[in-house]
Amino acid sequence: MTQYETFFSTAGQSMRESMIRKMGAVVAQARDMISFAPGYPAEDAFPWEPFAEIARELLSGDDGSVLQYGPTRGYKPLRDVILGLMGERHVTASGAGVVVTTGSQQGLGLVARVLLDPGDVALLELPSYTGAITAFRSVGASLVGVRQDADGINLDELDRTVMTLRAEGRRVKFLYVVPNFQNPTGLLLALAKRPRLLEWAERRDVLIVEDDPYRDLWFPDIAHESDTRPIAADDSRGRVIYLSSFSKTLAPGLRVAWLHAPEPVAAKLELAKQADDLCTGGLDQRIVYEACKRGVLAANLPKLRSHYQHKRDAMVKALHHHLAGALTWPDPRGGFFLWGKLTGALQSDALLEHAQKRGVVFVTGSAFFVDGGGQQHLRLCFSAPAPDRIAEGVARLAAAVADASAISAATAR
Amino acid sequence: MTQYETFFSTAGQSMRESMIRKMGAVVAQARDMISFAPGYPAEDAFPWEPFAEIARELLSGDDGSVLQYGPTRGYKPLRDVILGLMGERHVTASGAGVVVTTGSQQGLGLVARVLLDPGDVALLELPSYTGAITAFRSVGASLVGVRQDADGINLDELDRTVMTLRAEGRRVKFLYVVPNFQNPTGLLLALAKRPRLLEWAERRDVLIVEDDPYRDLWFPDIAHESDTRPIAADDSRGRVIYLSSFSKTLAPGLRVAWLHAPEPVAAKLELAKQADDLCTGGLDQRIVYEACKRGVLAANLPKLRSHYQHKRDAMVKALHHHLAGALTWPDPRGGFFLWGKLTGALQSDALLEHAQKRGVVFVTGSAFFVDGGGQQHLRLCFSAPAPDRIAEGVARLAAAVADASAISAATAR
Repeated sequence: MTQYETFFSTAGQSMRESMIRKMGAVVAQARDMISFAPGYPAEDAFPWEPFAEIARELLSGDDGSVLQYGPTRGYKPLRDVILGLMGERHVTASGAGVVVTTGSQQGLGLVARVLLDPGDVALLELPSYTGAITAFRSVGASLVGVRQDADGINLDELDRTVMTLRAEGRRVKFLYVVPNFQNPTGLLLALAKRPRLLEWAERRDVLIVEDDPYRDLWFPDIAHESDTRPIAADDSRGRVIYLSSFSKTLAPGLRVAWLHAPEPVAAKLELAKQADDLCTGGLDQRIVYEACKRGVLAANLPKLRSHYQHKRDAMVKALHHHLAGALTWPDPRGGFFLWGKLTGALQSDALLEHAQKRGVVFVTGSAFFVDGGGQQHLRLCFSAPAPDRIAEGVARLAAAVADASAISAATAR
Repeated sequence: MTQYETFFSTAGQSMRESMIRKMGAVVAQARDMISFAPGYPAEDAFPWEPFAEIARELLSGDDGSVLQYGPTRGYKPLRDVILGLMGERHVTASGAGVVVTTGSQQGLGLVARVLLDPGDVALLELPSYTGAITAFRSVGASLVGVRQDADGINLDELDRTVMTLRAEGRRVKFLYVVPNFQNPTGLLLALAKRPRLLEWAERRDVLIVEDDPYRDLWFPDIAHESDTRPIAADDSRGRVIYLSSFSKTLAPGLRVAWLHAPEPVAAKLELAKQADDLCTGGLDQRIVYEACKRGVLAANLPKLRSHYQHKRDAMVKALHHHLAGALTWPDPRGGFFLWGKLTGALQSDALLEHAQKRGVVFVTGSAFFVDGGGQQHLRLCFSAPAPDRIAEGVARLAAAVADASAISAATAR
C-alpha cells in the first residue's frame, strides 16, 4: 500500500476539520435537527425573482463573455460598483485596490499566503472566526489571541501582547478583526476604539485585516448605520486590508466577495488569486453586478434587517423563557450570532452531546478560541431557522441543559 | 509610508504575473487584436439555451439550497454524475475520492498545498502548463522538467532524473502530466507509455498528478476516444491524483471542475479546500449537474469536436500557406493548441513584439519551460477565434516574421 502520510506537506499533515463544517454534516444527516450551528443566511430572504430575471437576460447568449474566463481582479463594472459601496461605507477606495474574491474565505486564504510565513504571528480577537483561524493556521502561522471587552478588543492588552512578542523576537504581521457584529460574539467594536486601532497599527508598524461581512445587517431597534463605520474609513496611512461579501446580503451560493487593500498589497493578492482559481465565476459576478445596478441589493437590505432582527427577538425571548439563569448573553445588535455563556459548571462540549440527542446543534465556544479557552461558551446562530423553529430549538437546548445537570447531580451523589 | 515589502511572505515576494494572463490584458486593451494567446473555449459553442432553461428552473426558489452554502466536497448528485463520467473514462473511481473544485486551477493549488513543502520536487513535462507551474512554485517547490518525445514524456530521462535527484538528497513528491492534447504542445501521450508510467511510479514511490481537461476534445479525423484512456484507468495501487473540468466542455464561467484521488489524499484536499473557499458555487454546480443529467453535455461533445477540428484545419491550412519553412509543428489531434517551432534564428520573444504591432498575439514558448528553454517555440491557441480570424491572424503572424527577418538582415549588413 502507498504510504500517503509520507507524501503530505507540513501544512497538509496539520490540517484539521472545522467544527462548524462538521456540524453542518451532522445536520445534513439527521432528521428534524434544528441547527444553530453554521452561519447560513435565510434562503427565503434571497431575492429569487430578480435573480431569475437577471439570469434569463444574461444567458441569452448576446454577451458571450458572461460564461468565459475573466480578469483575475474581477469583472470591471462590478469592481466599479464595489468602489461605490465602499464610498457608501465612508471608505476612500482606489480602483487598483479592489480585488473580487470567490467568497471572503478566499480573501482570507490569499491574505494568509501573501503575508504569512511559518512562524509569523497573526493577532486575533478572543474569540474569533474559525474560517480565519483555519486560513492563517494552514500556512503555519502562530495565532495569538487578544481579549475582548463588551465594546470589542482590549487595546491595552493588544499593545502589551505585541511588545511581549517582539521582545521574544517574533514577527507580528497583522491584527485580524471583525468590527461589526463579530463572529462569534455578535459584538460591535466601539466607534471610539477604531481610530485608536489605526494609530496603534501605525505606531507599531502592523497591518489590520478588517473582515466586515455583517455591517449592513444592523438591527434598527438598538443600532444604527453610524455604529458600523469601518476602520478602513479613517485609514490615511494604508494600514488596512478590508474584506466584505455579498454572501450575507444577496446569497452565498453566488461565490462573490471582495477585498480592498493598499495597491502594492492588492497587486500581490491578485497574483495569489491567479494561482488559486484564475478568476471568480463569470455568471455569479454578472448576477451580483446586475443586482447592485438594478437596486435589488439596496431594496433587500431593509428587509434583511427586519428579518434578522425578528429572528433575534425570537431567540432572545425563548432564551429568557427557557434558559434565564443558566445562560447569559449580550443582546445582538446586528448580524447572525448570539454568544451565550453557561453560568454553571456545565461545559459546552458536554452540552453539545445532550443537545444532539434532543435534536438541536450549535458550535461550542472552544472552536473560536486560539488559546484553548471557550469551554463555557456556545455560539447560537439565529439567521437560518424560522422563528417557531428557533423557539423550539431553544426549548430543546433547555432540555439538554436539564439532562446534563441531572447526570451531573447523579454523579455528584 | 508603509513599507509593504517587509510584510510579504517568502511566497508573496516571489509571486510573478503569468505571461498568459498578461497577454489576456493586452488583448482586452487593444482594438482589432487577434489572440492566439489564452486557451479560451469558443463562446458560441456554449449551450446557451439549455443553460437559460436550467437557470430559470433553478432560480424559481422552490429549492432554497441552490443559493446556499454547500458541502466542501461538492453537491452530492453532481459528485455521483462525476463518478459516472469517470466510469465512461474507464476509471474505477470511489465516491470518497471525488472532490468538486472551483475550476481545475483550484485543484492544482490544493495539490500543491497538501503535498509540497518548500524544496520538495515536482516533476513536469518540458514544456508544461503555466497554471501548474505557478501553483507549484507558489508553495516554494523546486520544479524539474523532463523532456518530451513526439509521443510524450521520455521515460528513460524521467527515471534518470529521479535517481539523480535522490542521489542529491532531494524529495520527489509527484510527476505532473497532461496526457491528452497537452497544454502547450497538443501532444498525446502514447497509450503504451501510460501503464509504464504507473509501474515507474510504484517502483520509485512517486505519485502522479494527471491533469485531463481536454480528453473529450479528440478530433475524429486523426484521433479516437481510445487514444485518450487516462493513466488513472489502470491505477490499481492508488498512485494517481486525477483532475478534470467542465470548463472546456460546458463553460469556464461556471467555475466547476473535479479531482479524484486516493481516499486519504482526497480527505486532505477537502480540508485544504475548506480553508480555501468553503465550497464551490451552488448555482454553478447545479447548472452543471442539470446539464449532465439532461444530456446537454453528452450532446455538446460531438459538436465541440467538429468545431475545434474545423478551427485546427483553418490554422494548419493558413500556416502551410503563410509560414511553411519558417515554422514547424505537429498537427494537433485534439484540444486547443498548436505548438510551433521557429526554424531560423528568430526567437519567439522578439517575434511577439512584432506580432503585437501587426495585431496578433500568442504565448512565447519560454512561459512553459521550467528549465529556461523554449525560445524557439510559440503556443498558438486556435479555440476561440472564428476560422476567418484564424486565417487573418496567421497572415499577420507571417508579416511579423517578415518584419523581424528584415530587421535582422539589416542589422547583419
